[in-house]
Amino acid sequence: MTNYDIIVIGSGPGGYVAAIRAAQLGFKTAIVERAELGGICLNWGCIPTKALLKCAEVLRNVKNAAEYGVNVTESVTPDLAAMVARSRSVAETMSKGVAFLLNKYKVEIIKGEAAVRQDRIVSVRNSENDVTELSAQHIILATGSRPRQLPNVPIDGEYVIGYREAMTLRELPKSMLVTGSGAIGAEFAHFYSTLGCKITLVEYLPRIVPVEDEDVSAQLSRAFRKNGMKVLTDTSVEKVEIVNRVEASAADNGNDNGTQQKPVCRVTVKTKKGEEIIEVDKVLSAVGVQPNTDGFESIGIKIERGKVITDEFGCTSATGYYAIGDITGKGASLAHVASHEALVCVEKIAADAGVAGVANLNILDYGNIPACTYTSPEIASVGLTEQQAREKYGNIKTGKFPYTASGKATAAGVREGFVKVIFDGGTDLMLGCHLVGDHVTEMIAEAVLIRQNKIKAHDIIHAVHPHPTMSEALMEAVAVAYGEAVHL
Amino acid sequence: MTNYDIIVIGSGPGGYVAAIRAAQLGFKTAIVERAELGGICLNWGCIPTKALLKCAEVLRNVKNAAEYGVNVTESVTPDLAAMVARSRSVAETMSKGVAFLLNKYKVEIIKGEAAVRQDRIVSVRNSENDVTELSAQHIILATGSRPRQLPNVPIDGEYVIGYREAMTLRELPKSMLVTGSGAIGAEFAHFYSTLGCKITLVEYLPRIVPVEDEDVSAQLSRAFRKNGMKVLTDTSVEKVEIVNRVEASAADNGNDNGTQQKPVCRVTVKTKKGEEIIEVDKVLSAVGVQPNTDGFESIGIKIERGKVITDEFGCTSATGYYAIGDITGKGASLAHVASHEALVCVEKIAADAGVAGVANLNILDYGNIPACTYTSPEIASVGLTEQQAREKYGNIKTGKFPYTASGKATAAGVREGFVKVIFDGGTDLMLGCHLVGDHVTEMIAEAVLIRQNKIKAHDIIHAVHPHPTMSEALMEAVAVAYGEAVHL
Repeated sequence: MTNYDIIVIGSGPGGYVAAIRAAQLGFKTAIVERAELGGICLNWGCIPTKALLKCAEVLRNVKNAAEYGVNVTESVTPDLAAMVARSRSVAETMSKGVAFLLNKYKVEIIKGEAAVRQDRIVSVRNSENDVTELSAQHIILATGSRPRQLPNVPIDGEYVIGYREAMTLRELPKSMLVTGSGAIGAEFAHFYSTLGCKITLVEYLPRIVPVEDEDVSAQLSRAFRKNGMKVLTDTSVEKVEIVNRVEASAADNGNDNGTQQKPVCRVTVKTKKGEEIIEVDKVLSAVGVQPNTDGFESIGIKIERGKVITDEFGCTSATGYYAIGDITGKGASLAHVASHEALVCVEKIAADAGVAGVANLNILDYGNIPACTYTSPEIASVGLTEQQAREKYGNIKTGKFPYTASGKATAAGVREGFVKVIFDGGTDLMLGCHLVGDHVTEMIAEAVLIRQNKIKAHDIIHAVHPHPTMSEALMEAVAVAYGEAVHL
Repeated sequence: MTNYDIIVIGSGPGGYVAAIRAAQLGFKTAIVERAELGGICLNWGCIPTKALLKCAEVLRNVKNAAEYGVNVTESVTPDLAAMVARSRSVAETMSKGVAFLLNKYKVEIIKGEAAVRQDRIVSVRNSENDVTELSAQHIILATGSRPRQLPNVPIDGEYVIGYREAMTLRELPKSMLVTGSGAIGAEFAHFYSTLGCKITLVEYLPRIVPVEDEDVSAQLSRAFRKNGMKVLTDTSVEKVEIVNRVEASAADNGNDNGTQQKPVCRVTVKTKKGEEIIEVDKVLSAVGVQPNTDGFESIGIKIERGKVITDEFGCTSATGYYAIGDITGKGASLAHVASHEALVCVEKIAADAGVAGVANLNILDYGNIPACTYTSPEIASVGLTEQQAREKYGNIKTGKFPYTASGKATAAGVREGFVKVIFDGGTDLMLGCHLVGDHVTEMIAEAVLIRQNKIKAHDIIHAVHPHPTMSEALMEAVAVAYGEAVHL
């Protein structure tokens, strides 16, 4: 049985970062992966979806080209198959990049399905059903998550689909109902709507992107509706039946009676006004994820509400077993949380082992994790919403600077959006920052730094932001909060 | 003679910000403007150029649409006149916005050409040649700058043009020589090259965008050449002659002899290899700006090397006269410098006058001013270049993270670019940050905040940047500098 210093199970943005950092710090390291290197994020999440969404952006640009003095004389058609092919190719490039890095740092890559055992043993079953056993001093669990399924909307992969299928459809559906309006649901709704698919977006809670600030939800909702989406909030999906719809067939299909049957999804939704039947080609279930923790409890790893309990360094209740990423309960299921948890965990192991050069031990501030949604307009946020801040602090100052007052947004013709900031009136520290609009996913890092380093309001106002940029809007929003805005 | 607390001369991003802030703080304020409200920045600089550059971006997107699965079946043609019309309309919108703000805060707007006199008197000549005299306790000079002209490349407005004409051409020239490769020259070279004009970019110094880090110049130079631009460095324009070139005329123009004469610019350039003649339709002179300071010295305002000498609050050597923006010598001629100098100046006047609520007096750190160039790839930078840092500090750490290793850049298909950071090895403080690539003009604000607040290297590495964004590249570059990069 081969022995390692560290075995990492799962090669997503938690696992591969843990393995590379461990190897860099001198540990003999192995990583076990049952599917593609890079995990869901690289292969079925962040990266391929951003590749698809870039295609949607290009399509919008082409459709609106005349507004920018670019004349396109003939029709413009989206080629979903080509978009998907490009997206898969991007995912493949990134996955190969992870393989390159793992090899560069001499991490042993072991392909197969891992099962954790007592005494820090991992058994791995490969695709030929051969089982190998490995042992290590430290085992880092980074097994990630899979789509959550609602009992009344079971994913069949054909009519009722999850994010994987949504990323690889061969043909553009004419209509789709998306249930769940978090980042995944909102992004696919935006993508397919932009491509010309008739979208119904269903959210159980009173507003879409429900974890965001209320103003953000309102702005995205307006944008979605303006682009022809049907948005149903306070609505639940009660039932999905696959039924045959009789359609007039095309003249040249050789069908005698001139009609054909086509299976469609008959969805029963319950709104505040009562039940409604909606017929669509596809239903996309995007109601969140659930952690992959099978077998963990049997070796003494404590789990609560589906998530592995850890301390701030990722230590579980079982000595020598650590957990990072989606399976843990401290942060949201986000790639950047997993990657930073990986660094915290591995550097703590190294510090305890007396490895030199890990003096700057870091503990993650789970209250300062940014989140991005790549719709159009984009959303980015960090910290408390206005409502949360008001409840917790009472004395708050808020400022909102609209993109309509931004020179750069006006020049770019993307005046939909705003930056909203929330400050503690007592300390002048930023409690939350909420952005909607073009480029905001690249602007939120500044707010993370501001909050992490307790930079006060006037130091933000006095920081010279370059003109003309959207980033000025953040500075201006702070000035609004303090009654010093010149541009509003 | 109407008396004011404060008269501001010039309504650019220095002047209008000064006037609005002054009015907000309770001063009776007038602003004098001879041309469009908003000055050069809004009307002939930052804003209309960004509007044009957005058109170029759309054109690129349309031309490359097939790479993103968007099929455009027929030809795509840029309509320069429509682009210019859109740009002018954007400038007009922003200029009206300034008028709205000035009116909202009850700033008196006085149209005409101002001349400063002794004893804080300003005489204003309007378009009907009527002269009015105004007086004030404080006069803020915000008169900006105009294009600098080289003696051997005089601007005639027709063949040899400046930035104003370059912003409003009616027809796309077939070829253009751009002399000067700072932000203005580089942006127009990129814009016209993207539209299909054959560009020769001439720079007197050994590299283009010469104030940027060497790596940045190299990357932009590669990108420009790849896109078909001819880039000549270490080259001076010796002479421009307008000559008639005989051209074969189009068949249907009714000209008997089948040829026609067309005036072109015959440009003599001197490279390291010797002289060369280049014939182009237009020459764009973009060799910087010179301050508008006519008449200032006669009332005792001290000027050195063309710039008004001021203290850190904008006070000139003449009591009661202040100067901000391009006419001063402390900072670069950039809109965001002018706007912040305006706030510093007005808030100091208010503090001295005992106005409440200006307790947070700010002094600008001229070593921490960001600069952006909106080419493709974009450029953004702040602080010292590697060479400057090495000379000044000796013990430095540098880190460079390429866009090829960025998931977001890969997904977006824009893998050209990098983030480069330079740290003081002794203090772990950031000395400089240099970015090239998509979205970098929105990312540089983070580096400004980092430097302003003396945030150390590991606090940047530990700040959770959202995935997948280009902004991660800044965090990764710092990790590269400290030998802790996982993704490289």
